[in-house]
Order: sequence, then C-alpha cells, then structure tokens
Amino acid sequence: MRSYEVKNRTKTKDIKALRLITAIKTPYLPDGRFDLEAYDDLINLQIVQGAEAVIVGGTTGEGQLMSWDEHIMLIGHTVNCFGASIKVIGNTGSNSTREAIHATEQGFAVGMHAALHINPYYGKTSINGMISHFESVLPMGPTILYNVPSRTGQDIPPSVVQSLAKSPNFAGIKECMGHDRVKQYTSGGIVVWSGNDDECHDSRWNFGATGVISVTSNLVPGLMRELMFRGKYPSLNLKLMPLIKWLFEEPNPIALNTALAQLGVVRPVFRLPYVPLPHPKRVQFVKIVQELGREHFVGDKEVQALDDDDFILVGRY
Amino acid sequence: MRSYEVKNRTKTKDIKALRLITAIKTPYLPDGRFDLEAYDDLINLQIVQGAEAVIVGGTTGEGQLMSWDEHIMLIGHTVNCFGASIKVIGNTGSNSTREAIHATEQGFAVGMHAALHINPYYGKTSINGMISHFESVLPMGPTILYNVPSRTGQDIPPSVVQSLAKSPNFAGIKECMGHDRVKQYTSGGIVVWSGNDDECHDSRWNFGATGVISVTSNLVPGLMRELMFRGKYPSLNLKLMPLIKWLFEEPNPIALNTALAQLGVVRPVFRLPYVPLPHPKRVQFVKIVQELGREHFVGDKEVQALDDDDFILVGRY
Amino acid sequence: MRSYEVKNRTKTKDIKALRLITAIKTPYLPDGRFDLEAYDDLINLQIVQGAEAVIVGGTTGEGQLMSWDEHIMLIGHTVNCFGASIKVIGNTGSNSTREAIHATEQGFAVGMHAALHINPYYGKTSINGMISHFESVLPMGPTILYNVPSRTGQDIPPSVVQSLAKSPNFAGIKECMGHDRVKQYTSGGIVVWSGNDDECHDSRWNFGATGVISVTSNLVPGLMRELMFRGKYPSLNLKLMPLIKWLFEEPNPIALNTALAQLGVVRPVFRLPYVPLPHPKRVQFVKIVQELGREHFVGDKEVQALDDDDFILVGRY
Amino acid sequence: MRSYEVKNRTKTKDIKALRLITAIKTPYLPDGRFDLEAYDDLINLQIVQGAEAVIVGGTTGEGQLMSWDEHIMLIGHTVNCFGASIKVIGNTGSNSTREAIHATEQGFAVGMHAALHINPYYGKTSINGMISHFESVLPMGPTILYNVPSRTGQDIPPSVVQSLAKSPNFAGIKECMGHDRVKQYTSGGIVVWSGNDDECHDSRWNFGATGVISVTSNLVPGLMRELMFRGKYPSLNLKLMPLIKWLFEEPNPIALNTALAQLGVVRPVFRLPYVPLPHPKRVQFVKIVQELGREHFVGDKEVQALDDDDFILVGRY
Repeated sequence: MRSYEVKNRTKTKDIKALRLITAIKTPYLPDGRFDLEAYDDLINLQIVQGAEAVIVGGTTGEGQLMSWDEHIMLIGHTVNCFGASIKVIGNTGSNSTREAIHATEQGFAVGMHAALHINPYYGKTSINGMISHFESVLPMGPTILYNVPSRTGQDIPPSVVQSLAKSPNFAGIKECMGHDRVKQYTSGGIVVWSGNDDECHDSRWNFGATGVISVTSNLVPGLMRELMFRGKYPSLNLKLMPLIKWLFEEPNPIALNTALAQLGVVRPVFRLPYVPLPHPKRVQFVKIVQELGREHFVGDKEVQALDDDDFILVGRY
Repeated sequence: MRSYEVKNRTKTKDIKALRLITAIKTPYLPDGRFDLEAYDDLINLQIVQGAEAVIVGGTTGEGQLMSWDEHIMLIGHTVNCFGASIKVIGNTGSNSTREAIHATEQGFAVGMHAALHINPYYGKTSINGMISHFESVLPMGPTILYNVPSRTGQDIPPSVVQSLAKSPNFAGIKECMGHDRVKQYTSGGIVVWSGNDDECHDSRWNFGATGVISVTSNLVPGLMRELMFRGKYPSLNLKLMPLIKWLFEEPNPIALNTALAQLGVVRPVFRLPYVPLPHPKRVQFVKIVQELGREHFVGDKEVQALDDDDFILVGRY
Repeated sequence: MRSYEVKNRTKTKDIKALRLITAIKTPYLPDGRFDLEAYDDLINLQIVQGAEAVIVGGTTGEGQLMSWDEHIMLIGHTVNCFGASIKVIGNTGSNSTREAIHATEQGFAVGMHAALHINPYYGKTSINGMISHFESVLPMGPTILYNVPSRTGQDIPPSVVQSLAKSPNFAGIKECMGHDRVKQYTSGGIVVWSGNDDECHDSRWNFGATGVISVTSNLVPGLMRELMFRGKYPSLNLKLMPLIKWLFEEPNPIALNTALAQLGVVRPVFRLPYVPLPHPKRVQFVKIVQELGREHFVGDKEVQALDDDDFILVGRY
Repeated sequence: MRSYEVKNRTKTKDIKALRLITAIKTPYLPDGRFDLEAYDDLINLQIVQGAEAVIVGGTTGEGQLMSWDEHIMLIGHTVNCFGASIKVIGNTGSNSTREAIHATEQGFAVGMHAALHINPYYGKTSINGMISHFESVLPMGPTILYNVPSRTGQDIPPSVVQSLAKSPNFAGIKECMGHDRVKQYTSGGIVVWSGNDDECHDSRWNFGATGVISVTSNLVPGLMRELMFRGKYPSLNLKLMPLIKWLFEEPNPIALNTALAQLGVVRPVFRLPYVPLPHPKRVQFVKIVQELGREHFVGDKEVQALDDDDFILVGRY
C-alpha cells in the first residue's frame, strides 16, 4: 500500500529536529462524537503559540477510546487542514501487531508525517516479540517509539531501542524513565523527547534531550515553547511546577480534560472511563491560572470552576 | 463534527462547473489490498490529460467492495496527494442512512470537495424515505445525486430531485435515464452529468448536460476531454463507440478492470465477485486499442491479451 | 474456520422440507439498537403459531441497515434462545464476496442452520462472477439462493441455479420471478420457496413450490401456516389478498414495520431510510385487521392508527 | 438490548461455585484465522478432564489480538457447541467503556454465562472513573472482576471491589495480588479466584479462595482439577511447580502457545506480537512433560521440540 506521491513526505531528520510536540486533546460534542471545530481551534492555538508538531490520538488525545476509523479520519483531517503549518504525528501504535500495521499504513497514506509506536501493553510479549512488533511497522515511515512502563507494564529496554535505532526511519524515543535513561540514549546519539513534563526542562538542558512531547503545552503552549527554546530557564520551570503537578495527580488526561473545559475552549464532555476532577480540584485550577496569569493559557474566556452538573459523561457514542 | 478549517472548502458552484469527471479505478496488490502506487499513477494521468475531478470509490472504483475505513482512507489519501490539482468527489453514499451519514461526515472531514449520493439500492424505500435519506447528508457539503435504476432497482423521480435542488449544497445529478430526463432537468436549471458514456456527447451538446462522469476516461482521458470541451464532435464520438460498447457488455467495471490490466497500468488482480473478461474479449480489446491508437490510452506498455493464468482473483482481503 | 462440533448441524434435506419460513422483522429501541425483548416475543409467536424457520436479517429484517457484528450477534442470539424450536437461517449474503465469506463463516460458527445468499446487487457482475461468488460460500453449509431482480437489478438465470444445485449444500431457491420460473425449477427437482406472498398459494399448490419465505407471516403466522399446509385453500388466499396488497404498496418492510407498531408488538421506531406509512394508510390497516379478525394477528393489544408523533426515526444508531 | 429469553440464564451463585476455570487458548490456522476444529478439541478435553468453565478471549486466549466481531463470534460458538456442558465466561472487558458496554451486551445476547471485566489498562483512570466504568457493565449479568496490575499498570483497590460487591451480579474477583489480598476478600465474603497458578493451591486451601482461573489447566486439566478439588495436596502442587515456572518465564501466553504446539494439539501458528519460545526452552518443556508424565497432558501425540521453521508468525490476518 506504499505510495510515492505522499505529499510533503517528511524526512526523518525533520522529525528529529522537533522540540515542542503537543499531545493534543480530542474534544467532544455532547453525543460523544468529535467536536472538530473546537479541535481546529486548539490546533490553531498550538500553531500560533509555537508548537511544532502534534500527536494525534495519543493517550492524552484518548486514542484508546477511538475506533480506528475515527482515529485515521482525525489524522487525515489534521493533515488536510494544518499539515503545511505543523507536523502531524499519528499515534498508530497498538498492542495488536495487526492493528498497528493497518493503522500505520493508513496513517501514512492520509499524509501523517511520522508514527508514534508503543510496545504491546497489557498483553505484553517477549523481547523478541517486541522487536518483531516494531519491525512490522518501522519500514513504513518516520517513527517515534514510546516507552511508558507505568502504563504498559513493561519497559522497552535500551538494547531494543539501540537495535531499532539503526533503521533510517527511526526518529527517536519518547522516554518516561527519567534522566539517566535519557542520558544513556542521547550520549549514544539517539534522539529523545521527554515524556514527563516535570522533567522536560532538565532533560532538555542537562541530559541532551531534543525536546518534549507535552501534555502541559495544551494549556500553556507559549510557556512550554520558551522552556524548550530559550535555553536554561529554571525560574520558568519552577513557576510551572504547580500546574504540572496538578495535571498529573490523577491519570492523564483527566485533569487536562477538566482544565480545558474550565478554560472554555472545549465543551465539558467526557468519554468514559474518564470523569472530571472533583470540585475542590477545579477550584485549585482556577487559582493556578490566576497565579500564572490567564493570558498564558489558551482561550480568552474567564476560567471557571464549573458545577458538577455542567459535565456530560458518555459511555455510548 | 463540522469544522470551519477544512482546507480549500469547495463552493458548490465550482463543482457545478466540472465537465470531465472520471470514476476512477481502484487497483489492487496481489493480496487484495490497495495498490496505492498504481493508483497514484492513474490519478496523475488523469490530471495530466485533463480530467477535472475523480469519483473515489464509485461503483467503478468498487466502493461496494471496500470497508468504510479503506474507503475514507482512499479519499483522504487522494485529497492529501492531489487535492490541489483535481477535485476529489467521494462516493460516500449507501443504502443505509447511518452509513451514508457517517461516511459523508468523515469524507468532508478529510477534505473531499463533494459527495456523491445514491438512493437506497436493494433495500429501497418510499419517496418520503428517499427524501429523508438525502436530507440527512445534504447539509454536510456539496452533493451530487446519482440515479441509476438499472443498479438500484428504483428511479429517483424528478419531483425528488427538484425538491432537493433547492439546497445550496445541491450541485447536480449524475443521471443514467437518457436524453429526455437530462433535458427535463437542464431546462429547469439543474446541472446534469451524463452517467452513460455512449450518450454523453449528445447529452452535453444537444440536451444541456454540463459534462460526464465517465468510466471510459480511465482509458482515454484525453479523448474524453476533447469530447466534453471542443464543441460538437460527432466523428470522435463515433470513433469511440466500439470502445464504449466493449466496456459495457458486462457489468462495469469488469471490462475496465480487464482493459487496465491489459494496458499494463494495473496488476491483473480482481476482487471477487468481479472476474476478468474471457480471452476472446481481451483479444478484441487489443484490436480496439490498435484501431484507436495506443497513444490515446493511458500507460506506455504494449497492450496485451494476457493469459487466464495471469489473473489473480481474491475473495479474502 | 470449520468446526465439527456445531451443535444440531442441520442436514440440507431438513432445510429442503421447510414450508413456512418467516422473514422476521427486527424491532428497535428508541435509540435504534435492537429491542431483543420484542424480538424474542416475535420469534415465540412464530414458533407457537407454526412457522418452521426464520430468516434473520433478511431485507425484511433490515440486514442492510445492520453492521455485521450486530447481524452475527442476532443470528447467534436466535440460535441460542430458539434454535431447538425453529430453524434459524441467516441472511449472510452480500454484494461483496469478502463480506459474504466472512459473515457466512461466522454465521455457521454461531450455529445458524442455513445461509440465505443473494447475487451481488448494485455492483452486479458477470455470470462467471456470480458463479464464483456463490461457490465461495456454498461449501460452508446448507444454502438457499435468493433471486429478486427488482431489488438486485440482475436476474440469477436458471443455468446458474441448475449448476449450483449439484452441490450437496444447495437447499433450494427463494424465487420472485413468478410461476413459470417456479415450475421450471420444481419440474427439475429443485426446491423453491415463493418470494411473493401474493403468489405463494398458487406456487405451492399448482407449480410445485415447497413453501414460502414470507413477510405476511410476521402478522398472521397461523393463517400463512394454513395456506402452506392445509392443501388448496383459494378462499383463504383470497381473503388474505387485501392485507398482502397493502403490505407491498411501498417497498417492504415499510408497511410491515408500520403494521407491527400499530399492533403494539414493536415500538414505533424506524431506522432510516425507512419511514412509516402515512396516516390514511394506517387507518386502512386498522380496517383490514378488523375485517380479517384481530385474533388472527400477532399480539393482543388493540390495533391503532397511531399519530405521526408516535413514530421515532433514527439516522445515527 | 436486554432479553428475557436468554437460554440457561445463569444465576450469579452458579458462577460463584466454580472452582476450576480455564483461560482457554485460541488456536489459529496458518493464515491467522481461528482454527475452530482445534479449538473445539481443546474445549472437549477441558470438559472431559473436569474444568467447569472457560474464559473465552482472555489475555491467555489473546482477546487483545481479536477484532470484536471475532471475539463475540467465538463466545457465541462456544455457547452454541458446549454451553450445556461447561460455563462460558466471555472476556468482554476493555479499557474503553464504550467497547466494554458493546461487547458485554453482545456477549450476553449470544448466551455467555458471565463476563470477565478488567479495569481500564494503559489509558487508566481515576477511582471514580474506574467505578463508573464497572457500573456501566455490571447491570448486564453475572460479572467477574479481574485485577492484574502487572498488566494494567493500576491496582483495583479493595474499596472499589467492596463497593461493587453489593451488586447482585457481582460474582467475584480474579485476583493476582497475592495471598494477603485474597484473604482480605474471602474473610469478607467476597469470592476470589487465584490468577496466579503458582499460588492457587495455597490461596484455595489456606486463604479461602474458591478456585483458580488457570493457564496451566490448558495443559494438564486433570491435575489442576485434583489441585482444586481433592483438598490440600502439597505434593502435587510441588510437582507442578517446574511446569508452572516454565510457563511464566516470558509473558503469558508465549510459553503456553509454544507448549500446545509441541504437544501437537494446535498448529504452530502465532499471531504477532507473540513469538515462540526459543529452542532450548522447548527442549526443557519436552523434559518437563516426560517427568510429569505425557499421560497427564492434553492430546496423545508425542511431545516434540519442533524446529524454528515449523512456526508460522502472522501479522496480517
């Protein structure tokens, strides 16, 4: 299903150069379908405020709650509308090799610039199985690996990464295992994006990381841009910590979803199994916004705590 | 799922102006998946030789043999690679209103310029049901209706078309019911594309049709371009008749699939229930090509009769 | 995917012996999902009043508006709940050979007793293609062909039927082409079920048909049982004609759906593109019920004309 | 989509009484589709040798590598063929609430006796989200929860289990967190099945567990039956340890898949990302079989080490 015509066929080195990649939120209509107007606004804000790429349908974007046809449509939509202004990285990974192959073929066919690939979570597999899994999709185009053992239950060991890094399509790894692992890779010439917003400043400036694949940048893209581009900036990093901590007290994207609704940039609609943060946490977010300054956050409505009744939770969609 | 960002959002009047629209063939790999490289070559040939639009996944393109995710992917792919050079019209119609709604939303989201909509074939419905069906999808974007009772078992009567024509998204109708019906519409200001290649010259020049949605233009796009653009040209029309007759002796796209394989521009792979024309018919095609001139046909390999063993038929894919 | 364990593996001759087969209605909940409680009641009524088999997801049961997973689930459900009391024939046909193969494998795996197979409608194909299509599914189990050119746009010619009839899995044909065609088959030993309720009495008693695959028996199973079992019974046939005519004035199952809602045995929910018959037709049905006698119809609520507002039409489900 | 007709509607207390439940292997044909004949043989062996229930499409049965229509079909097939002899528990859980709802509705509709539900792995959620997730499916029928943090990355805390245990549909929990957790539940009247074969004997006889949901019983169902039924039997437990250890050195079901192929009861076909154990491990298994006694293992062919070339790995299926 390869095609030579793929427009703007991205070179791996262009992916390697990205510093600020936002794992973009997927907003919903009250019936649970995608709210593409709100989505387009979110992407526009990312472009205007300096993000260089988005992950479409990552764990933050709730790819795990999409059907594959929704997921590929969203990738194609993003490419079609914004592909000239921002790199579009599709999270076409899966714990099923079949699904990863199918989605990655389709994602590149509709123009995504790179794929994000997770190791087989939940079902897990052996090291040889993991390598076979990644080798099934790596030939298709520029690829970022994603290592997050707290979600997958299984570490991608450096030996696997180093072996896959020989492929010309290997762009780098989104790594959540901390500075030592980051340094181990970057000292060997492997591109790393931090997968932990609270560590990304230090990973970038002290341990050789190229940048971050960020959740926080959904909210404050401009500040995250400064954090990744302006050189060491510990005071900003410190200033962001309360926000980042608040964001990850519950499994992501629960707090992010709540925050974006409070900022008035997405409707307060949750696809189960996600539910909003409770009211006291929402009040806390209002304060965080006021302290950091509303102007740094996306949107221009007043931040609100919202009532429990404002939220819509959907199980069938 | 509406979006204001859809790139190159096409105006209905731009669709109304199209004269040569090719119902493009979908080529396959030996395992039955799409052969996107061959597909891209076919589209390029259409662009170079003057087609202004393609129908993706029409009956000619075997949309009826695609899963919806394949279908939407192909639309997104075509937009992404060629959308700046040629209009992409997705056949997102279905006999199931649910499927038509879902596919049309997704098709416009990935950037298609217009939708082609058939009335509910096989299951059929009442006139009121037909109107409800079309009204479920018409608000989504520029729309071409498709009337082909020999396939659907049910005529879309003029009263329905005239009622739907009031919508600003109504672009026109692909009509297969002959010159009288064409004239009835065009005299009332409704745009018509002929759905019958053997009638399209006369429909265009004598009965007010705007153009054709053509199968034959897969093979000889340049000649079909002349037929639609150069003014009355009965000698060319006559010259094309043997080819057109040959193309429709069996249900389309059987002959087209066979011909494109014989011309060496697609692999000789058929998705069942389609099977190649028998050898004597293939020999006949070689003669037709020689008589019309190989240079008018797509591709540059020698036309071949092929052996029965050259063809691959796939039922599981 | 074959299995030797399939419980109650039905012999083709047991299928051949069936006289009254009901193309069962699929009832819906207000959100468009299946109403399995109402469905189970309908099946129970069929069993009690003498139907010997049901077609699940036929055109009457709106298989064309189901996703395949819904369709196979409904077959599995019917087998699981009623398979010991009534034969379950799954309409696993499709105009896509791939889909027909997949659905038929799955249908037999979940225990259906026979498959109903249509020729490729809408897309159509050549005679050789038609044969290849049927031969892809015939080896899987007992099979009934279905010929209804008014829906498919293409006749299955006797030569094809006679050729397929050699398979030990060929049970017979549901034929809508009239008495002559019926006689042609039955005189050659091919089992025929009439596909036209208005002709079924004569087809059965004068032209050798084994029975009927009936729409009308959804409403009056007991009377249809008499028509197929008691010997020539022209007075009953005549008495049923107004009901049968009323049922087929619009494409089936529009009138059937309306009637069952009026009888109070299903909720007045329509999946588009079907919409209820207009009020005057519904008043007509009330009269027909009164004339034939309410006691012959399924259910025990009073028949009602219903208001337009009582009906729910669903496009997304 | 509820139905009162569901045959053999199982009472929760019948599920609570099960002691030996096998998480059954799904065998494949060389093209990756299900090998239903081999599957039926495996189920028959379980019935004959004393298993009381099977989990269909668990992590052992590779539900994570199935499409939902395959999965539901396999549940329906198992009910249809074996539902009178063995309880059929469908693993209709998912990290997507939508998918869990859809699959559980369908699973009960085709007759499964109980559902197995995992908490949302990979995507994870808050405690409130977890409760909402389970409450979306618990009303549908008898339910077993499944807690395996090493796969899901998130523990189901006792507070959640105790809260859900109030539902009449709550049958119990498959718990992998060890004896203390087991005891905590059983002392409070909550039914527990051990999810760890190496601990199941002690959990059952010393900590109040009702039984085991076992992987090992795929290989030696008779011995596992003795372990769960005959009373304390430490010598048998000790004898089984080398086999159990061997089975879990790599993520399950890698070793199980390899072992069943070596025993000749399934074809040596693996769906990626699973790959067979390497040759030395296979030689080890041959010795384990010889030491325990071939007669205790399923099948009657000689156990073989097999060559690497004997295995078929499939990524597209």
